[in-house]
Amino acid sequence: MKIAIQGEIGSFHDAAARQWFGSDIDLVAADTFSQAFTSLDKGEADALVVAIENSIHGSIPQVYDLIELHGHPVIGEVPMRVHQNLISLPGATPSDITHIYSHPVALSQCSDYLDKHFPDAERIEHPDTAGAVRHIKEAQDESAAAIGSTRAAEVYQLPVMASGIENDDQNFTRFLVINPEAGVSSGANASMISLVTNHQPGSLAQALSLFAEHDINLLKLQSRPIVGSPWRYKFYIDVACSGEQLDILVEQIRQHGNDLAVLGEYRLAN
Amino acid sequence: MKIAIQGEIGSFHDAAARQWFGSDIDLVAADTFSQAFTSLDKGEADALVVAIENSIHGSIPQVYDLIELHGHPVIGEVPMRVHQNLISLPGATPSDITHIYSHPVALSQCSDYLDKHFPDAERIEHPDTAGAVRHIKEAQDESAAAIGSTRAAEVYQLPVMASGIENDDQNFTRFLVINPEAGVSSGANASMISLVTNHQPGSLAQALSLFAEHDINLLKLQSRPIVGSPWRYKFYIDVACSGEQLDILVEQIRQHGNDLAVLGEYRLAN
Repeated sequence: MKIAIQGEIGSFHDAAARQWFGSDIDLVAADTFSQAFTSLDKGEADALVVAIENSIHGSIPQVYDLIELHGHPVIGEVPMRVHQNLISLPGATPSDITHIYSHPVALSQCSDYLDKHFPDAERIEHPDTAGAVRHIKEAQDESAAAIGSTRAAEVYQLPVMASGIENDDQNFTRFLVINPEAGVSSGANASMISLVTNHQPGSLAQALSLFAEHDINLLKLQSRPIVGSPWRYKFYIDVACSGEQLDILVEQIRQHGNDLAVLGEYRLAN
Repeated sequence: MKIAIQGEIGSFHDAAARQWFGSDIDLVAADTFSQAFTSLDKGEADALVVAIENSIHGSIPQVYDLIELHGHPVIGEVPMRVHQNLISLPGATPSDITHIYSHPVALSQCSDYLDKHFPDAERIEHPDTAGAVRHIKEAQDESAAAIGSTRAAEVYQLPVMASGIENDDQNFTRFLVINPEAGVSSGANASMISLVTNHQPGSLAQALSLFAEHDINLLKLQSRPIVGSPWRYKFYIDVACSGEQLDILVEQIRQHGNDLAVLGEYRLAN
């Protein structure tokens, strides 16, 4: 299968795509999230794996907008521990390392480790963790190291000098799987919907109460502006139900004059 | 009064600060939002004016986190139409202009106008709209123009060659006023709260229902991750009530085991 991702081979998106689809995939690498969705529209990719939120940095709101804009269904989720590694050339030892490349967020996520073990090494920003690993491979510079995923170390066949070097051990990214052809997964137990409430006070509370009355957990709620309607919002909501139960509640919420779309049904990963 | 802003003199933040406090203020310019809040902590500024959301791009989530982290009260809001202008040196005519400087977002917001009237002019990115205007003033280059606020044109005493050149006429930014010393404004009719619900299904719906039962409008709801607790969220909620009515509802929501903080009470601007 051809799987679109934002970023390049060896990135965390690549690792998430392999976690869901297995290793027998062809990656369609896109520079931006928007281009990754477009490759699905054009049939250049069969499916898409895309980050939707990080447990420290929060949602990626643009991805919600793109899911609704492009209209392909969400069919799965992949939560992934963000596990950073210091990757070097074969034979390099810690005392050789004088400069360390990575994405600025990855450098920041590993600052405690770098301060302690490499206080004098220069930290050099690169647009992409996987690209930083590729760079040290291509440069063949034994004084350079890069911070990236274990997948990047595999791809470029480079040794991991130190693993799990991030400051915070509760750093997860949640990816979504979008597949126009797959249909609803068996065992789907969650759904993503978008909701624009009617203009009445209490309409959001009313809609959420319907889920609560049926003991359905609200998993996530993210608001986004409605372009052209300042200070009005669309809500993207993940709820722990699917199938017939979802259909009945969707119908009830619509009967109150709210605008609702089902963006996908999926099985919770844990 | 000394008013902290992110950005420099002539920016939209500057304009918002003047709209609220009048023209007799000293600006404390900070490079980042975090530094602007810190200048308030240190007493280097008396108050802070900070963008919280844009009607097209959405919330600035980091600012919510900073409001809660620094703990100074929100006491007002300033909604402002984002009105872009083409600013040139005195005497320059449209046919003189061969390159146009501005922040990438501003260049993008004015793309229709630039495509139509300046199809051949080079568009050059600058970190800041006000800084772009300052740059053309300092360079004294009659072939250069900059896109920025009318405030920037005033500050640098440059003529506006064309005004209202943005593509979308529904582009607003909402600023908040944060002032540790001011107390609650007379006529306050809205509040910002932060809410971490108990772990029960329906707890968010229950909290929102309390406002609905009293016909209190929910103005805005923004979720943010709780760092260290993956897939749990804090909700920042703006509601159309304040004072005693707010106190009673806050007490009821807390009685259900939810963690709630009042971040400020303010008067709605419109």
